[in-house]
Amino acid sequence: MKLSKMHVKTLREVPNEAEIASHILLLRAGMIKKLVSGVYGFMPLGWRSLRKIEEIIRQEMDAKGGQEILMSAVQPAELWMESGRWSKYGPELWRLKDRNGRDFCLGPTHEEIFTDVVRNDVSSHRQLPLNLYQIQTKYRDEARPRFGLMRSREFIMKDAYSFDKSYEDLDKSYQDMYDAYGEIFTRCGLTFRPVEADTGAIGGSNSHEFTALSEVGESEIAYCESCHMAATTEKALCADAVPSTEAQLPMEEVHTPNTKTIEDVANFLGLDQKQTLKALLFVTYDDEGEENGYVAAFIRGDRELNLIKLVNALNIPEHAIAFADENKMAAATDCVGGFTGPIGLHDCKIVVDSEIPGLKNLCAGACKTDYHLKNVNYGRDYQADIVADIKLLQAGDPCPVCGAAVKHARGIEVGQVFKLGTKYSEAMGAYYKDENQQDQLIVMGCYGIGVTRTLAAIVEQHHDENGIIWPMSVAPYQVVITLVNPEDEIQAEVAEHIYQQLLQARVEVLLDDRKERPGVKFKDADLLGIPVRVTVGRGAAQGQVEYKLRRESEKEEISTEEAIARAIKIVAEER
Amino acid sequence: MKLSKMHVKTLREVPNEAEIASHILLLRAGMIKKLVSGVYGFMPLGWRSLRKIEEIIRQEMDAKGGQEILMSAVQPAELWMESGRWSKYGPELWRLKDRNGRDFCLGPTHEEIFTDVVRNDVSSHRQLPLNLYQIQTKYRDEARPRFGLMRSREFIMKDAYSFDKSYEDLDKSYQDMYDAYGEIFTRCGLTFRPVEADTGAIGGSNSHEFTALSEVGESEIAYCESCHMAATTEKALCADAVPSTEAQLPMEEVHTPNTKTIEDVANFLGLDQKQTLKALLFVTYDDEGEENGYVAAFIRGDRELNLIKLVNALNIPEHAIAFADENKMAAATDCVGGFTGPIGLHDCKIVVDSEIPGLKNLCAGACKTDYHLKNVNYGRDYQADIVADIKLLQAGDPCPVCGAAVKHARGIEVGQVFKLGTKYSEAMGAYYKDENQQDQLIVMGCYGIGVTRTLAAIVEQHHDENGIIWPMSVAPYQVVITLVNPEDEIQAEVAEHIYQQLLQARVEVLLDDRKERPGVKFKDADLLGIPVRVTVGRGAAQGQVEYKLRRESEKEEISTEEAIARAIKIVAEER
Repeated sequence: MKLSKMHVKTLREVPNEAEIASHILLLRAGMIKKLVSGVYGFMPLGWRSLRKIEEIIRQEMDAKGGQEILMSAVQPAELWMESGRWSKYGPELWRLKDRNGRDFCLGPTHEEIFTDVVRNDVSSHRQLPLNLYQIQTKYRDEARPRFGLMRSREFIMKDAYSFDKSYEDLDKSYQDMYDAYGEIFTRCGLTFRPVEADTGAIGGSNSHEFTALSEVGESEIAYCESCHMAATTEKALCADAVPSTEAQLPMEEVHTPNTKTIEDVANFLGLDQKQTLKALLFVTYDDEGEENGYVAAFIRGDRELNLIKLVNALNIPEHAIAFADENKMAAATDCVGGFTGPIGLHDCKIVVDSEIPGLKNLCAGACKTDYHLKNVNYGRDYQADIVADIKLLQAGDPCPVCGAAVKHARGIEVGQVFKLGTKYSEAMGAYYKDENQQDQLIVMGCYGIGVTRTLAAIVEQHHDENGIIWPMSVAPYQVVITLVNPEDEIQAEVAEHIYQQLLQARVEVLLDDRKERPGVKFKDADLLGIPVRVTVGRGAAQGQVEYKLRRESEKEEISTEEAIARAIKIVAEER
Repeated sequence: MKLSKMHVKTLREVPNEAEIASHILLLRAGMIKKLVSGVYGFMPLGWRSLRKIEEIIRQEMDAKGGQEILMSAVQPAELWMESGRWSKYGPELWRLKDRNGRDFCLGPTHEEIFTDVVRNDVSSHRQLPLNLYQIQTKYRDEARPRFGLMRSREFIMKDAYSFDKSYEDLDKSYQDMYDAYGEIFTRCGLTFRPVEADTGAIGGSNSHEFTALSEVGESEIAYCESCHMAATTEKALCADAVPSTEAQLPMEEVHTPNTKTIEDVANFLGLDQKQTLKALLFVTYDDEGEENGYVAAFIRGDRELNLIKLVNALNIPEHAIAFADENKMAAATDCVGGFTGPIGLHDCKIVVDSEIPGLKNLCAGACKTDYHLKNVNYGRDYQADIVADIKLLQAGDPCPVCGAAVKHARGIEVGQVFKLGTKYSEAMGAYYKDENQQDQLIVMGCYGIGVTRTLAAIVEQHHDENGIIWPMSVAPYQVVITLVNPEDEIQAEVAEHIYQQLLQARVEVLLDDRKERPGVKFKDADLLGIPVRVTVGRGAAQGQVEYKLRRESEKEEISTEEAIARAIKIVAEER
């Protein structure tokens, strides 16, 4: 393609709302275009890269026996009611009505639809296993869309669903997808980690998130370099503190004026924060968004709460909980802001972290302004409604598997795989007949890749201050020929010769034949991030051109023919 | 692919709601699946054919310099308000709100979005011409979705938009697309006609519809075999009757009891229907759907009204008009059901067909029960608000170009091209700077192909009582190997050999290795419509197989190697 004919509108300035490299550079390179908050279009170069990612996904899915289909983006509410998710899914489910007032949603995911297909089509065990997938535009009406393609309201996903006869077969299907994802993200040039993850609104038992490492990612992962432990911090189990063997001392009320924080009370009483009990107060909501109760969560004073673990322990969706208004809650439960402890609380659910019962003689709020209780002991002094691991695994904490110090990293969730089990087949009645003609529930898995988010993650990992540095496999074009002076006949001829030779070799090549200053062309080439640049300038008269890889800083003056040969070779090796 | 591993669920029975061949056969072949009324999913085989159509479109669009992009399916109302279509588009525009109450629609077409892109990106004449296109899921909330993919609420379209400096350049862009469409539909194996068409809700000056001929099509076209005239009946101009040279006779009221129809009154008075004036009564609606006036349309008694021409003459959208309640209208305008004429009517718009002023001494209703007026003459006795061609060109009518008798045919609208001119660039302010740095309006065209509808049209033209007969270019697989008895080792071995040889030759081949009766396999092969069938049965032991083309009835016993060679050859020739 000749750049003079191509619709590429690069920007010199950083768009106002863009904060991270992928957002800034994809906008500046004119590859994406914002329509409204969280809704983007793909311009010619961006769309080419996206289609390459799609093709890589397709190849690896097909290699594992996946079969591509396309189901509708608009989904009838009835199916979501069958699964129970119509009421459970929060406001990010983009709902609409048709002209007859019937309820629909724009699908954020397709478990219901695929389960419906399979319950209708599959009757015999001979039709299983089955893996169906689609690459499709999906919707999530985010409260705060941000970071460009990273958290948008309309986005492209590959979603696959596996259907098996048994949990053992699901293990195999899951492993196939896990392996395929490894191939896909490797081919896309990403540095990533598969980590254990929470199953969230999708449900199911097991899950791994594929996380492209990046400081700007919204996922936080904990991993151990001594063993293979790797999990999102939401999911990561914690090693509980060693149970104390101390004798239980008599409980004692102490005056602790103005010690509203753990730090204050520990300092005031000369205690380690580990000897205190921290309270966090929440209100919960029902499906209609009405308040329906209070929760007090207690963890060791030096710990942080893990909200995902808490909602899982409560078995409620994430959007059904929020920090409580302390005054309002006080009226109902007798909690006291800054001085809440488990003793004296009433009419609220008490959730206690799993290590607390093993600890002795903690200092807790007295539910009385300016007072704490010392030597509070679980069992003797109070009981909980729920005891569960609700604490966050922090960097430096002991690894729950091997005990070594855990590390943290940030990353972008580009894919996630789930063992759904029979959650949807049970809710929606998806059965197969086994060898003995007995009805059995189909065992499911689901597997997503954020295609547009993968594009952004690639840019996050592959850029410098001048622009994008596309890996060959997903570059919109593989080679750019920068024709320094299109008015110069020899230069134009040499550039055209290289262009034709590369086209013949099926190299995807851009010829920058625009009537622009050379500086503009070099800047644009760097911004667009085409992997190989061949510059045709004054040396053309002597049969010399400049050869440069975008990812390297050195340039070489070589012969035209050698440049052609080298370009063909590197494209063949890396495409 | 081995059919035992493939998700194909064929149906023996014709689904209840399916009336036409494409709907019946695509459902029976398990290629599409209905989710709710007007919303379908594509199963593996159907999706493969659809992707082939997409690829043909892509290639031909790219060959004309089209550049593929992808804009959002969800569109903000603001852009539609700028163009004025937010209020003009009827209830088939599927509207929704986001969580903040902001108005959006699911795009049925993308003029606004593409104009917005170009007004932001294009500043100089050097950036034009430009042709941007996308292949995308679109929405139209049809009142009566029917005929499967033919009139559905969610469908895939290719929509392209051209941007030019002048109307002359637009002519070239339009011709390029016109030519590309010819290539595309030819490659898809369709028999079609490009015909002049109305511009409808899209607007603009010129338009052609590409109509795949089919008895079940919803488009009616008029064409002339003596000249090149071809147009939708909505659009087709009519030759007006030769103006009469008769002298105007005095108007005369006659008693015509119970003659409510043209036929009745003509018989009663002994007149030719051509000597009568037919009235049709309508009510119109404003943007809010409130009644805002009445219309009486008059045509020669033997003619049919063309509603599209009438709404164009009135300059209102098609959904803003309906037949009037005669009693209600009578109260306001003094019309009289069955006896309405132009004289005596008031408070309503009178539209008269273009040939009426040239005709003399017509018989019209008297606006008085059981009375007509003879010798009514336009100009002398009444005036119209609008005089325009509002009549339908019917089969046998004289061709408006050459006078020969016109023929009618039915067809499926698979594509349409429009010269938009400056309708959108003017409304939305899309300018470029010319050579003299003066702002000029960008001149636009738009070009649509119903991709899913093309799939259906292909099936309408290529099927028999046993199933689909795919043209090679869009067949989901090119060859099917029917292994008669998978338990027979020799047969299985020969089938596998052919399968491997064809795979190596990059032929898309299905091996029917299912443990089903041979009759089931043959029936399924016919239903699925794979162009070439190689049957491996008892002859396999002697190296003989059966070779058959789906489109032909004869079968041949030939050697395995010849079957392989023939299959490879025909696939190469026709793919």
